[in-house]
Amino acid sequence: MIPIISVVGQTDCGKTTLIEKLIPELTKRGYRVGTIKHDVHGFEIDVPQKDSWRHREAGAMAVAISSPDKVALIKKVAQELTLDQLVNQYLTDVDIILTEGFKKENKLKIEILRSGVSSRLLSKPEELLLIASDEPGKFSEAPCFGLDDAAGMVDLMEEKILSDARTTKEKKDDIQLIIDGQDISLNEFARLIITNSVLGMVFSLKGVESPKEIILKILRHNS
Amino acid sequence: MIPIISVVGQTDCGKTTLIEKLIPELTKRGYRVGTIKHDVHGFEIDVPQKDSWRHREAGAMAVAISSPDKVALIKKVAQELTLDQLVNQYLTDVDIILTEGFKKENKLKIEILRSGVSSRLLSKPEELLLIASDEPGKFSEAPCFGLDDAAGMVDLMEEKILSDARTTKEKKDDIQLIIDGQDISLNEFARLIITNSVLGMVFSLKGVESPKEIILKILRHNS
Repeated sequence: MIPIISVVGQTDCGKTTLIEKLIPELTKRGYRVGTIKHDVHGFEIDVPQKDSWRHREAGAMAVAISSPDKVALIKKVAQELTLDQLVNQYLTDVDIILTEGFKKENKLKIEILRSGVSSRLLSKPEELLLIASDEPGKFSEAPCFGLDDAAGMVDLMEEKILSDARTTKEKKDDIQLIIDGQDISLNEFARLIITNSVLGMVFSLKGVESPKEIILKILRHNS
Repeated sequence: MIPIISVVGQTDCGKTTLIEKLIPELTKRGYRVGTIKHDVHGFEIDVPQKDSWRHREAGAMAVAISSPDKVALIKKVAQELTLDQLVNQYLTDVDIILTEGFKKENKLKIEILRSGVSSRLLSKPEELLLIASDEPGKFSEAPCFGLDDAAGMVDLMEEKILSDARTTKEKKDDIQLIIDGQDISLNEFARLIITNSVLGMVFSLKGVESPKEIILKILRHNS
């Protein structure tokens, strides 16, 4: 399970700016960072008149754009995806995910409070990891940092979240089971039996030698 | 395996325009269409100064943008992905994929030839599905259609490719095995034994009732 931390706070409180400081601090320490944001007004994704936009206008369900150093994808969805669905489908190869907003989802929160703008917490106490504020001495509901103290905030993330994730990851093979978009939690017995069974079958196939990543998708039409 | 057809031809021969005609014709007949294009100059993906662009500039490996009706994703890659990798990772829930360009990959081709602009075929004969031209009577290397005859071209696609794909799909469960980004072809015995073993294990888990889509990912750290 990739740790997800949501940066929340009132409009214009500086969520993007804080995320811009956290990403390089995390990257410097060796973590691959993914981010997720809302596109409230629907215009951030589109680049009108470009070929990819023309494909979408003509009715394509999904448009991918590929270049030597990056890939972009725009896909229609029937309803807004949850953070877990977004992560399971698109962001499986990062170590940590920061979201901009998504205050209603039940993820750990970094909440920004600014004097004169916002002084009351939006986050539920049990979800609040830390507060970032221009008045860091003022709040006692959670560890509180200055808005520029990315190093301090990442120290706390490492202590509380990332150290576990990293240790677990180094020790054993990762297995993730997603059924109809939902991550299914597996106990140790289920993890072992599924991993070993699938690896056993995969190793029996011709041409498979030392696989690193195995993805198996089954789509049932007669369920 | 989702059918992939590449629309190829010289620069400015009208590849995007042809794709814009094929997509609604396919959609009208009930197919979900995905498209893939190259971003040669690297500017189509970026929307400078937007929040998502700022996340990427700060070093995020992957940025997702979510809205009620669509999802966008921009992801760094170490090297350009092949069409198969793009499809396996990002475009698994469509019925047909049209690509703009990608003439060097070994996919079926629709080649555009225009009088005065291009008259020699780029495609290998065995990959050429059809020719679209302003002089449709002129070529005999493959079935040849006028540039506006989307219906005729889609008739041929249905006859040669889509009918098989649709029939296969309706008959049985789909299984796809991707190892280190490569689609592994499975014979009927391997398909059945893997599908039944995984379904058996999945059905033994608590809370799983009638799954439609099962995705299993294994990342091996000690391989």
